[in-house]
Amino acid sequence: MAFQKPTGTQDLLPGTVEKWQYIEEKAKSVCSRFNYKEIRTPIFEQTELFTRGVGETTDVVQKEMYTFEDKGNRSMTLRPEGTAGVVRAYVENKLYGEPDLSKVYYVGPMFRYERPQAGRQRQFHQFGIEAFGSVDPSLDAEVISLGYQFYKELGLTGVRVEVNSVGTPEIREQFKSKLQEFLLPVKEKLCRDCQSRFERNPLRLLDCKVDQAYFEGAPSILDSLDEECTSHFDMVKGYLDSMQVNYVINPRLVRGLDYYTHTAFEFKAEGIGAIDTIGGGGRYNGLVAEVGGPDQPGVGFGLGMERLVLVLEKQGVELPVSKPLDMYLIGLGDKAEREVTRLLFELRAQGVTAEKDYGGRKMKAQMKSADRLQAKYVAILGDDELERGEIVLKSMGTGEQEALDLENFIEKFLNKQ
Amino acid sequence: MAFQKPTGTQDLLPGTVEKWQYIEEKAKSVCSRFNYKEIRTPIFEQTELFTRGVGETTDVVQKEMYTFEDKGNRSMTLRPEGTAGVVRAYVENKLYGEPDLSKVYYVGPMFRYERPQAGRQRQFHQFGIEAFGSVDPSLDAEVISLGYQFYKELGLTGVRVEVNSVGTPEIREQFKSKLQEFLLPVKEKLCRDCQSRFERNPLRLLDCKVDQAYFEGAPSILDSLDEECTSHFDMVKGYLDSMQVNYVINPRLVRGLDYYTHTAFEFKAEGIGAIDTIGGGGRYNGLVAEVGGPDQPGVGFGLGMERLVLVLEKQGVELPVSKPLDMYLIGLGDKAEREVTRLLFELRAQGVTAEKDYGGRKMKAQMKSADRLQAKYVAILGDDELERGEIVLKSMGTGEQEALDLENFIEKFLNKQ
Repeated sequence: MAFQKPTGTQDLLPGTVEKWQYIEEKAKSVCSRFNYKEIRTPIFEQTELFTRGVGETTDVVQKEMYTFEDKGNRSMTLRPEGTAGVVRAYVENKLYGEPDLSKVYYVGPMFRYERPQAGRQRQFHQFGIEAFGSVDPSLDAEVISLGYQFYKELGLTGVRVEVNSVGTPEIREQFKSKLQEFLLPVKEKLCRDCQSRFERNPLRLLDCKVDQAYFEGAPSILDSLDEECTSHFDMVKGYLDSMQVNYVINPRLVRGLDYYTHTAFEFKAEGIGAIDTIGGGGRYNGLVAEVGGPDQPGVGFGLGMERLVLVLEKQGVELPVSKPLDMYLIGLGDKAEREVTRLLFELRAQGVTAEKDYGGRKMKAQMKSADRLQAKYVAILGDDELERGEIVLKSMGTGEQEALDLENFIEKFLNKQ
Repeated sequence: MAFQKPTGTQDLLPGTVEKWQYIEEKAKSVCSRFNYKEIRTPIFEQTELFTRGVGETTDVVQKEMYTFEDKGNRSMTLRPEGTAGVVRAYVENKLYGEPDLSKVYYVGPMFRYERPQAGRQRQFHQFGIEAFGSVDPSLDAEVISLGYQFYKELGLTGVRVEVNSVGTPEIREQFKSKLQEFLLPVKEKLCRDCQSRFERNPLRLLDCKVDQAYFEGAPSILDSLDEECTSHFDMVKGYLDSMQVNYVINPRLVRGLDYYTHTAFEFKAEGIGAIDTIGGGGRYNGLVAEVGGPDQPGVGFGLGMERLVLVLEKQGVELPVSKPLDMYLIGLGDKAEREVTRLLFELRAQGVTAEKDYGGRKMKAQMKSADRLQAKYVAILGDDELERGEIVLKSMGTGEQEALDLENFIEKFLNKQ
């Protein structure tokens, strides 16, 4: 019997994986310049961390988690997102006790049992950052600008940030009542999802793609903000202006979680015919305390890798990922083959990307391989040449070939490069 | 309540994670030169892939797997090792149909429910390679030499390869009988593990640390090899000689899996007071067919990251991981702070690793941060300087400072670097 990968998972094969490597390198490079350090947390955590840290009323926790009992009868869950584990690590390892801010990033797999579709997998991948320990609005702006710069350096065009302030939990409670009041007359006309959210999570109503018509003239959360929230939001916008980040204010942008405070944002990019959300985040001053830590503020984002790869493809962005071979070595005859194996190892140890045949194929087949692998040079060693102490070097670009002394062949080749 | 990471898992925090990054970069660099491409397979697979691909009688499958039912009632298992998934991907994606060999590598988490101890975690990490499509002994030697070169470039000393040939499944069957015959007289004296393995997996007896005294004079598998196996092994050794790989022959080295053929090997390194196995692999010409693929040969290895990090530490190897800051920016006053945020973003966009304060702290506290972060330069902008259109740049190495025009400050700084 032949096996298949689980539904909703992907194999990243040579030819595709290089794009992912390039994107991850870019993430790492941008984070390094912004002074964010990598953090790695386990693939699974205690289930309760996510019910607390993601929120009991969310779809993720209610429907989509990969939860299992380990052999010690503890309930574990494959992480459905990146923030909860990072916050747990921040608290458990007492990073809040260090003199400077904790600014961290992660790249890795997350798991949600959803219906797979283009750009949405059950095992999906996120690049995220989290910054703990400061309420300075310039930190909100930094987090946004880091994501913006990341997309820009990848060559994505038309990236726009939508920004909002969701105030404090208290302000949101007042706003929820106002919103419910406004929508009560049309409640029965709303879609099923919205009716179910009406009591449970009324802010998410504003996200609904179906019922937008009923929301015209609805109260804006920005009108409910107090002075402190307004001032924070104004400063964030001021910093974004000074950094020339392309943003718009979207007062209907709410993120689902109860502990969000002040800034919420999403990154949007043009695909073909639709504007896609490719990432988002916000400030979460309540979360660290929620999972048992001290009262430390945080702000961060999570960007989807699958969706990013898709949008890069849609926009026709060519990532510079081709890595041709420096040299293909051909040995003809048993003795020559052995010498070629030695030369190959030595070249690779000296930093040269090199390959040979492993099937005793004819010269012609080997030259074809060299072509396919885009080798810059081919070196040919037959038993005759070996006896004369020579090796033939052919440049695949110019077609020129020359016989070189075998003895100092590697040295000469390294000087050519 | 505060949460803890699951037993047997680790957080890799800033300060430690840089070592892992360095090791992974090294793996990637060596693989690139040897023409191995990355492959990524899912974190979990159908359980049966592992019972078939790792082997029903192994401890891993019998005791250590993280197996769970997904919401579709399918039995899934977090991968306990890397090869089975890669072989599944090789078959499912028909990589065997491509004109050149498939030579791939992976780095990632694996999961086994074991008792955690130093260098052994329940979520652990492996760097592995697999090469499919050739029975050429030079490919066995290449796989070994790649691992050897990887350790060497990391600065690990005293690395030794132990090599053996385990022949073919048929030869092993004959050898098992010979071994059982030899050990039958002392069977009752062997340790409990060995008694249980005596019928089930007698080759693994030779691995036993307790019963070595009884194995003196035991038959050697090398004496059971046929001409083809002997010739293959001789050629592997010849290639290893020509590449100056430090190896010894260990006829008692057997790897547990039934589909291993010909070459088996382990990497050993000196820790403190003990020789540790830090990786191993072999040729597995039967495995691809075993999981439903065509009759294609393979050879590969898996190296443990946790153990490697431990041995590097024991040997006192300092990996070059320090990444000091290029510049720390200090803004004093509201207007200056805003200008500093703009400069900071611009510097980072231009490739400079730069940081500032996010807490409105005093100049002295900020200078301390700059010191801790090993900043090469500090730039100071007060509202006074801002009015004059100047900024003060201080070299932390020499202590020299100068006032520069704010207008072309970034350009001037980039020229300095």
